[in-house]
This record gives sequence, C-alpha cells and structure tokens, in this order.
Amino acid sequence: MSLIIIGSVAFDAIETPFGKTDKIVGGAATYASLAASYFCKNVKIVGVVGEDFHQKDIDTLNQHGIDTTGLQIKAGEKSFFWSGKYHNDMNSRDTLVTELNVLADFDPILPESYQDCEYLMLGNLAPQTQQTVLKRLKNRPKLIVLDTMNFWMDVALTDLLETLKLVDVLTINDEEARQLSGEYSLVKAARKILTMGPKYLIIKKGEHGALLFHEDQIFSTPALPLAEVFDPTGAGDTFAGGFIGYLAKVNTINFNNMKNAIVFGSALASFCVEKFGTERIINLTEEEIAARVKEFVNLSSFNIA
Amino acid sequence: MSLIIIGSVAFDAIETPFGKTDKIVGGAATYASLAASYFCKNVKIVGVVGEDFHQKDIDTLNQHGIDTTGLQIKAGEKSFFWSGKYHNDMNSRDTLVTELNVLADFDPILPESYQDCEYLMLGNLAPQTQQTVLKRLKNRPKLIVLDTMNFWMDVALTDLLETLKLVDVLTINDEEARQLSGEYSLVKAARKILTMGPKYLIIKKGEHGALLFHEDQIFSTPALPLAEVFDPTGAGDTFAGGFIGYLAKVNTINFNNMKNAIVFGSALASFCVEKFGTERIINLTEEEIAARVKEFVNLSSFNIA
Repeated sequence: MSLIIIGSVAFDAIETPFGKTDKIVGGAATYASLAASYFCKNVKIVGVVGEDFHQKDIDTLNQHGIDTTGLQIKAGEKSFFWSGKYHNDMNSRDTLVTELNVLADFDPILPESYQDCEYLMLGNLAPQTQQTVLKRLKNRPKLIVLDTMNFWMDVALTDLLETLKLVDVLTINDEEARQLSGEYSLVKAARKILTMGPKYLIIKKGEHGALLFHEDQIFSTPALPLAEVFDPTGAGDTFAGGFIGYLAKVNTINFNNMKNAIVFGSALASFCVEKFGTERIINLTEEEIAARVKEFVNLSSFNIA
Repeated sequence: MSLIIIGSVAFDAIETPFGKTDKIVGGAATYASLAASYFCKNVKIVGVVGEDFHQKDIDTLNQHGIDTTGLQIKAGEKSFFWSGKYHNDMNSRDTLVTELNVLADFDPILPESYQDCEYLMLGNLAPQTQQTVLKRLKNRPKLIVLDTMNFWMDVALTDLLETLKLVDVLTINDEEARQLSGEYSLVKAARKILTMGPKYLIIKKGEHGALLFHEDQIFSTPALPLAEVFDPTGAGDTFAGGFIGYLAKVNTINFNNMKNAIVFGSALASFCVEKFGTERIINLTEEEIAARVKEFVNLSSFNIA
C-alpha cells in the first residue's frame, strides 16, 4: 500500500547528559518514514530542505525504499534547524535554537506519482499546510493520521479545528489533549476530541505509554521501561511512523489492528531512544523488531482465569 | 489463609473540587483490610485508635469479616487525624492537618490468635514499628509486603534499610523509588532496590498504573482511565490490600499470580476513587469486581499473530 508522510526534514543539534551532536539529520518526516519503512515498502516523503542538506542523508532514505521525489531542495536556502538540550531526567528539554528557514514558506508539492496514496501521515506542521496536502490529493486516502502540537493550538486554533474535521486519527500528547479539550480527565478530553472529527485518538504519554480511544473503547499500552534513555528526540515521530506503516502493511482498519499498530509503533520508538538521532532506527532487523514486540507482549500480558 | 494488616486506622477530613467531608473513617489499614476482605475471609487488623473512634466504623470492619482483636482503643486519647485538600488536577494535594495522637507512641500488640499469620501487610508506619511486628510473630509469614513513603527515607533511612532486608515485596511510588535508589531510570532503581532485600518491587504510578519487578522480569499494568476521580484518598492502600488479599486467596507465590494480584488491586483502587473515603469499597459485589477486572483485560490486551 502506498503511504505518504509529510513533515519536516531537518537538521538537529542535540545535547543530552550522555553527550552532544553536531548538526545531524532529523525532522518528523525523517523519523516517521524510516520507522514506516520496516513495514511498508512504498513510503513517499513530502518535505523541503535547503541546499545545505546532505545527499548522503537522502541516500539513506532511498536505501530504505523511501521515495523522495516529493522532497524539494531549495537552492540558496537553508534547512530547518532545531537545537535542544535535555535535562537530567530526559523528560524535559530546553529549545536552544529554532531556525525555520525553508519551512517558513513551505508549499508542499505532490508529484503525480504520489496520487495513488492510500495512507497519509500529516506530520506536525502548520494546519494550513496540512490542509493544502489534502486539497492537492485527487482522491481521499483510506486513512489520514494527523500529528500536531500545542504551538498550533496557541497560534492557529481555527485552522487546526478545520483540519481536524478532515482526518481519521489524531496523535497528541496528554497535555495537548487537555489543552485542546479544556478537560483534565483524559477520558473526558477524548470524548470531546472524538466529536471534533477524528474517529480515533491516540494520546502519547512518553515513558507512561499511550492510550487509544475509539467510540467507547480504550486501549492502553505501556512504554518499554528502559535502563537508559540516550536521546528521546524523534521518539514520537518514530512511534507515529511505525503505527501508520504497520496499518499500511495489514491494510485493514479496525480497533484490533490499531492496537497492534500502537504496539509496533511503541517498539520502534523504544529503539529510537537508544542512540542519538536516527542512528538506531536506520539499522534494524526484522528479528530485532520481532523480539522487541515480544518484550511488549511479556510486559503487559496477564492471564486471569 | 490468615492475613494480618498493620497500619493506621484514623480519621480523615478531605476536600476535593467535588466537595468536602467532616471527619470520616480512614487510614491505611482500614482501606487495605476492606479491599482484602473481598478475597480473603481471614483478615486481621493491628492498629490503634483513640476513644473518639466510632464503634460503627469498627462494626463495618467486622461485618466484612475483619478481625479487630488487634485494634487497640486508647482511653482518654484521640485517633490519628489527617486533613488534606486536593488540587483541581486531583494528582497533588496539600496536607492541612496531621495530628499523630495515638500513633505517636504506637506499640503494636499481636493477640495470640494472630500467630497463625501466613500473609502480612506492613502498612506505612515507622520502620521500627514495622520491625516490632515481625519480632513479635513467632513464625515468619509466607509473604511479607511492606509499604513505606519518602518521609521515612528522610528521617529513618537506616531503620528502613534494616526493615527492607526482612520483607518479600516492597510497594512505593515512582518518586520514592528514585529517592531510595538514587537512580532516575525506574529500571535501574528497581535493580538496586531488589538488592536491598525485597524479591519483588511494585512501583505505583497513580493514574499511569503500576510496574512489577522481579529478577529480570517486568510487568506493567495501566490504571483504568476514569472520567471522574472523585477522591483519591486511600487508593494506594486499597491497591495494596486487594493485592495481598488476592495472593492470600490463591496462596501460591509466583510471578503470574503477582501479576494477577496487581490487576485485582488496581481494580479495587479504581472503585475507591469513585466516592469519598471508604464509601465505595464497603459496598462492592463479586459481580462488580469481576466486571471491573474484565475492563482491565479489555484495556490492555492485544493479539499479535
């Protein structure tokens, strides 16, 4: 099945208690497409970079079977750059630098070869930009997943609410769910958000796992307890990419497959944090993924007679 | 199987965004013994109250089959009293009043009829008092569960470390696990704590559920996502009581039964928060408990082929 992932393709400079990096490849679409590539052999990126971007990083995407025809390279411009420093608890971070550069006036272009899209991941971007992608697709994809963040709730809420009406799945974190709904209880928050458009809501809780809401059903999955979180950057995007990549692979949308997709997404995210940036998720084997998923099964299964 | 629960039996005055109570019955041993009574028909309390305590609250315990022979009633003295006010998020609270009263010099007395104890819950009290109970039991119980809190880590760490060597299971929350171990990662914290005495460690994470650690095995259970948390007071004690009560019922200690015990404890705790104080957990039916456990199964089960 064809899966389009739109989002940032960028440079990150990351500092954690374990060390720091120079500018390395990052961006939501990078993480999500790499994660999805382990399940879906037909992943296509829509994004934009500057002429400072490295061909070797595009090559890496291509080596994972990711189509980068929709990745614009802007001559004379610079790629989106984010720099951040994680605190000792690795759960909070300070943003040191955000340079939008090419993202400031990003106009997503969809090559004709992308029009067969059946699965669409709208990564965290301005809601208007996300809507533009939907308008430029001749046929509505079978499943549209939207990621967003508190920033857009602050500065573009009307646009975001319009975009929400057009999607099937929304992924946000617990604080964002509370902000969007005005409800503290996540159950009440989910009930409200499920009237805003999405039929499925995934609330990401970081080290506490994730919740899936659909109609009156709830599924809860833990995050894998890890001895060492080396670098959390991109874990949420990796989760989302693994999630939609798995769904594109099984190609049937129902609550049970959504649950499994969340487990696979969580497994991919648990790899992501083991090394800096994309270092770990560019080198996974099927056996490693299967073993990690088995760890999730062991972690959360019980058998009450 | 005989189960002794030692801990506070007290008065609480509680204020939440939903209302406030006068002095109502509370205390760790009260919550834990009520929860345990749904699984184990031979629960015995060790505790102390003042002459201000109400006979009707003792009657309620007895009506649940709880033996109160070990509950001392001190003439001319007052019961332990705690008053607290929950914030709007229900996850944090201010303590308004703590009057130790009879608890200040609590000397736990074990009636001869308690000497058949096979399961022992050492509720949150001074580690020295917890040790006294162990010394006064002629035979070591089959399973000893210890609950404690950050306060004892601050003021009686040496005693606490001594007591830890004597128990099988420790239940603490995530912040306490970090404080006790000096490790932020809960996996590393658990590894350290499992060298301090307990063979099993349960880390309670409130609305995020609980983790069970044993050797190199980990089990994670979610808390039931609730639309309304009416009053969280006693939820942790109710969890612990349901946990050890279930184990006393099945009477075989292994990792699988521990996992189930955590699910049953979590189910009981999810009832506790639905009303003020003990109001909800004094009136449960077997059918209600079975249905709630089924909700936990639905919440966390998935089926990856």
